[in-house]
Amino acid sequence: MPELRRNPVTGEWVIIAPERASRPDIYRKERVQEKPDITGCPFCPGREKMTPPEVLAYGEAVRQADERGWLLRVVPNKYPALEPLPETTGTSGMLASRPAVGFHEVIVHSPDHWKGLGEMHSEEVHQVLRAYRERILYLRQWKEVKHIQVIVNYGREAGASIEHAHSQLFALPLIPPALERELNHSRSFHRRKGQCIFCALLEREMDGKRLLCSNQDYTAILAFAPRFPFETWILPRRHSPRFEEIPIGELSSLAEIVSRSLKSFFSALNDPPYNLYLHTSPCQVRADEYFHWHMEILPRLSTWGGLELGSGTIICTMPPEEAALLLKRRL
Amino acid sequence: MPELRRNPVTGEWVIIAPERASRPDIYRKERVQEKPDITGCPFCPGREKMTPPEVLAYGEAVRQADERGWLLRVVPNKYPALEPLPETTGTSGMLASRPAVGFHEVIVHSPDHWKGLGEMHSEEVHQVLRAYRERILYLRQWKEVKHIQVIVNYGREAGASIEHAHSQLFALPLIPPALERELNHSRSFHRRKGQCIFCALLEREMDGKRLLCSNQDYTAILAFAPRFPFETWILPRRHSPRFEEIPIGELSSLAEIVSRSLKSFFSALNDPPYNLYLHTSPCQVRADEYFHWHMEILPRLSTWGGLELGSGTIICTMPPEEAALLLKRRL
Repeated sequence: MPELRRNPVTGEWVIIAPERASRPDIYRKERVQEKPDITGCPFCPGREKMTPPEVLAYGEAVRQADERGWLLRVVPNKYPALEPLPETTGTSGMLASRPAVGFHEVIVHSPDHWKGLGEMHSEEVHQVLRAYRERILYLRQWKEVKHIQVIVNYGREAGASIEHAHSQLFALPLIPPALERELNHSRSFHRRKGQCIFCALLEREMDGKRLLCSNQDYTAILAFAPRFPFETWILPRRHSPRFEEIPIGELSSLAEIVSRSLKSFFSALNDPPYNLYLHTSPCQVRADEYFHWHMEILPRLSTWGGLELGSGTIICTMPPEEAALLLKRRL
Repeated sequence: MPELRRNPVTGEWVIIAPERASRPDIYRKERVQEKPDITGCPFCPGREKMTPPEVLAYGEAVRQADERGWLLRVVPNKYPALEPLPETTGTSGMLASRPAVGFHEVIVHSPDHWKGLGEMHSEEVHQVLRAYRERILYLRQWKEVKHIQVIVNYGREAGASIEHAHSQLFALPLIPPALERELNHSRSFHRRKGQCIFCALLEREMDGKRLLCSNQDYTAILAFAPRFPFETWILPRRHSPRFEEIPIGELSSLAEIVSRSLKSFFSALNDPPYNLYLHTSPCQVRADEYFHWHMEILPRLSTWGGLELGSGTIICTMPPEEAALLLKRRL
């Protein structure tokens, strides 16, 4: 089973999951770019038996599990990076390791192989968000689960290995470093200023030159210090620490903003590869006062090099103010 | 000029450098993959006037600056991410920014357009390392320069935009987060154990299953918790906080290990794209007791997705013990 290992120098954790490598020779550069052949797609209707048994599906009221008739389907990842096995021992000391206990699920967005989130109607996006919410509420009950990370990898350059549009959910046995940093910073800001840093940011950005779009409940802004050109954040306008606890009625408001943002990307950037992910409070952390859940979208139109990977200093060639202008024309 | 901006939530700094974007439309996905046309290469001999005036060159004893006859050439980056201008004011508060003061140089490895470090003789690699050393010793004198980051981006997938093999040097006005983390961890390890963590690691790995190769002065090991498959670290065997202060006579020993490591990559992974970078003590930090300089090499044969970028949790599909076996066969 996969294994968690801590980098002895930086303290960062890595999941070692050799089972996820499909062939021993995938590290050779000349691997053939398979021509998309959707007849083998494990996420298309009629091939439900190619995935592990589904854990959730939306669709026809009367329907057999793992048969056609679904509109959205959630299944455990066939090659999981995390597995719900009882915790066994690892190693400690300088080269520490422990088993990668948790859940790794796939949310197949729709039966349509080709339709990305950026091409979906707002109602279809709503259905995807509803599945995120439902699975998080279910999986956060496990005491081993410390944080649930939902992500979308869209396009090969964004790390997608299966073309059929889907999200992935990782129920992790740790609070990952990016969340840890955001929690620390927002806690310390709250202590100093008596305010949530995201609420303060929204106040600043609401009528500013980095605003992309907004409705009564949600706002999309271009990140002030983007790690990738066109990096966009979507935030609830009212303070809210947990995505999974928002009123179900508010999901359509969120779906509208996600949909409008992605459509502007689709149109301005010609269906770009991107990552989308959710930052919600870790399961067992009470960060209600200072943490504010949000989504981030990173179009993958540039490549990190040695400076980014080696030092953590990032060069971004597109000012967000300019990016906002370009995207707003396509709203 | 480029601008440094701090992410208000994570505290990370980003350089905003719009000047580095060559055309306004580079963010559109369909950009044509230019067929390599070396007749326009600004780093090839005979085109010395296409770069800013050189700041260092090795080659023929009698030679005019910015003319042919060089074997290695260092020039300021034509589209710098950092510029040596006097510090001007920025903004403070939640959305903090300041000018990106510093130096950004390019080290052209050799007159040969096609020859990567992994195809060079050890003596040619030696020359490249000598240039790193010489430029760091020179640039660290500036009081604005807090850290010098040397990197190689080899291949388009590793972020290289110019094909002709070269390194880049960034003299930064800050200590970047990756160094900060390594300094903090190694300082705390030293306090607890009275030993340098890298020295302790070398003791553990010296005869272990992650050892790649070694000579009297240097060792190459596969990283215990790799961020990319085949991630390799090269370390001096004796404690040494600063690359730029190693005896010049030791450079050939280092060149041998760098060369052997890269040749094993070249052969086992079929000339893969990679990043190589140097971690040496920041200029004004006295970390002599606990920090140990080293190089890291990251082959770019996998793509980070939303989990890596969004949470900092990394999935690596190749155990380093297996990677070591594969590479050692090609030594």
